[in-house]
Amino acid sequence: MTVSPLAPERFPELAAIDGVTLSTAASGMKYTGRDDMLLMRLDEGTALAAVFTLSDTAAAPVKWCRERVSEGIPTRAILVNAGNANAFTGSGGMEAVTSCCRGIASALGCDAGAVMMASTGVIGEPLEVPVLAAQFDRLAASTTDWQAAAEAIRTTDTFAKGASATATIGGTEVKITGIAKGSGMIAPNMATMLGFVATDAALPKVILAALLTDATRRSFNAITVDSDTSTNDSVFLVASGKAGNPPVSSPDDPELAGFRAALDEVMQDLAKQIVRDGEGASKFITIDVGGAADDAAAHRIGMAIANSPLVKTAIAGEDANWGRIVMAIGKAGAGVDQSRIGVAIGGIRIAADGARIETYDEAPVAAHMKGQLIDIEVSVGTGGGTARIWTCDLTHGYISINADYRS
Amino acid sequence: MTVSPLAPERFPELAAIDGVTLSTAASGMKYTGRDDMLLMRLDEGTALAAVFTLSDTAAAPVKWCRERVSEGIPTRAILVNAGNANAFTGSGGMEAVTSCCRGIASALGCDAGAVMMASTGVIGEPLEVPVLAAQFDRLAASTTDWQAAAEAIRTTDTFAKGASATATIGGTEVKITGIAKGSGMIAPNMATMLGFVATDAALPKVILAALLTDATRRSFNAITVDSDTSTNDSVFLVASGKAGNPPVSSPDDPELAGFRAALDEVMQDLAKQIVRDGEGASKFITIDVGGAADDAAAHRIGMAIANSPLVKTAIAGEDANWGRIVMAIGKAGAGVDQSRIGVAIGGIRIAADGARIETYDEAPVAAHMKGQLIDIEVSVGTGGGTARIWTCDLTHGYISINADYRS
Repeated sequence: MTVSPLAPERFPELAAIDGVTLSTAASGMKYTGRDDMLLMRLDEGTALAAVFTLSDTAAAPVKWCRERVSEGIPTRAILVNAGNANAFTGSGGMEAVTSCCRGIASALGCDAGAVMMASTGVIGEPLEVPVLAAQFDRLAASTTDWQAAAEAIRTTDTFAKGASATATIGGTEVKITGIAKGSGMIAPNMATMLGFVATDAALPKVILAALLTDATRRSFNAITVDSDTSTNDSVFLVASGKAGNPPVSSPDDPELAGFRAALDEVMQDLAKQIVRDGEGASKFITIDVGGAADDAAAHRIGMAIANSPLVKTAIAGEDANWGRIVMAIGKAGAGVDQSRIGVAIGGIRIAADGARIETYDEAPVAAHMKGQLIDIEVSVGTGGGTARIWTCDLTHGYISINADYRS
Repeated sequence: MTVSPLAPERFPELAAIDGVTLSTAASGMKYTGRDDMLLMRLDEGTALAAVFTLSDTAAAPVKWCRERVSEGIPTRAILVNAGNANAFTGSGGMEAVTSCCRGIASALGCDAGAVMMASTGVIGEPLEVPVLAAQFDRLAASTTDWQAAAEAIRTTDTFAKGASATATIGGTEVKITGIAKGSGMIAPNMATMLGFVATDAALPKVILAALLTDATRRSFNAITVDSDTSTNDSVFLVASGKAGNPPVSSPDDPELAGFRAALDEVMQDLAKQIVRDGEGASKFITIDVGGAADDAAAHRIGMAIANSPLVKTAIAGEDANWGRIVMAIGKAGAGVDQSRIGVAIGGIRIAADGARIETYDEAPVAAHMKGQLIDIEVSVGTGGGTARIWTCDLTHGYISINADYRS
């Protein structure tokens, strides 16, 4: 598999998170010569929050995790497998998750309800539990190799995705480290592809959940590769508390400002890496929408542009065909007044007040289109609603990958 | 331009419609060696109904026609140009339409308000009125060549699209003939790409409008090529009354049953021809959804499947990857219970009650995927809601056409 031309030069240095250990293994279920299983172990006292796909056909592991989160049993481990999504597998799928979590619980000496599971891969094929179970003892021996963990959860990803940041809470330094996978079937809806973010900060579950939901809106929910929402999207945020920072009172505590910024940094970095690994991507596109009635309307317009096959193919073809952006604004159904619409590409104003500006010169826009980073800015009125969406172009590579690969 | 492999063998025989005459001309604005203008003239007493795009960035000619339809001035002519959509052209765009309609009105000796206009082509470029106006006198000389008319309104279309049918109303035979254009930017929303349907039946405007809205729902609104909704979608239905059938009292008059069926036949035929000419299409896909809460939910699920890039590329690759169909059902947000979902391809049952059936054999499904006509059937519960959606696959051809062509 050729590495995406938009891939970062190297995997970043990731900070170890005290209280969180990792191990990987190769089940041989689908891939050869690589690990495809990850176990993330959490020390006692670790708090967890998670967001999941809103798909009506959510996978068995998603249902399992939702139930466990609502029960409130402290999580001690998260098991991940790549190659089989265990989605649309009926009651057998739920039995498979239960069986895996029981197996891990037995190897670790904890309750099965303290084990979460996340799966990614082909939909509709029964999960072969014994193939995974053969690796459970091996997985119980933990390390702290975040890069190996990021490698093990890949499917069509052409590179492993990780990010780290630090912040202080009440004068105490805390670390955040995250990994993610995702490349196609990317249009997360209130959730994301698989993402695992850990911090050593001491933060109670309710605050963690609020921070995660908020950061997800500005990161994994602000990206799209192909408008297709996965059955398995899940993001976990765990806090081991080992940093020993002073307690905070609410998600809005001013002491959390730095942590919020660092969490945004890690999650947006991971989200952008997923777009950079978008199947067949050759351009990374940032879409800024302003002047909408509210943020939700701006988001809807940004997503309509980001998901338009005609906008994405024009960018792939380095064609400054800005009329397709106008078309996408129109189809978003956000009720904008077209006489207020303005469009800029690469910082160059093209249209204002509902028509092309008289002095428009295509040459600098055409030059911008030849770059790898494409910036689109649209204003749709005088409202205060804004959104920033990241996406990639639609190329022959996407067709080649998806007309052949059974994902 | 290579003709679509899904194109009909030949252009059909179209019935002339008494009271409706046609003429075409070549403006040279964008294309060389072909006509790109059409004038459809309507005898006095002809009734007209129309449906238009719901886009917030509807083009100037769409706005013009909406205003004329609401005024209720009897329409005497419809002017069409291909190559420039006159969309997002500000107040200058509206002046251009007014100027064109005045020019035609002057050539025909009627009121400018009695002239409709429909445009298709590039968005955002000012329409050069003098280039079109130079052909107005020529257009005033009418013929009845429907094929030439269908040829003149093409843009990326690889073949001209037409259909005819007959019916009886109160014992009198009436004819229906229609033409349409469309290939990309096809996801009509309560309207369609450009379509012109004429009948010699005597039907008042209000009945015509009801019949058109209803038939559109089952034809142009039930297709998608690429999920992108045009700024210029318009369908006109005109009734010259020359057949002299007895009057009908309402759209639900039993005497109209045959006419409704014939109108469905013509409009569905045209809609399917647009899908058959979908940019880069190599497979024609029919999606039947059953068991939904209501028809709207079924339509939403059908469209989610039809617009999924992952479903469309799997079909392009002749891959029986039915899990992607399940993903698309899930992302539709129609609130289905996945334990009731069933899937069949090519009439072969694959999944039932939320999981793959035990006896599933991929071989016959794989064989069906190799054909040009792909049938997908999904059931999502026990409700009475159904929908039938037509679409095409997503191939390298779509990328090639849209990464290069400025449409």
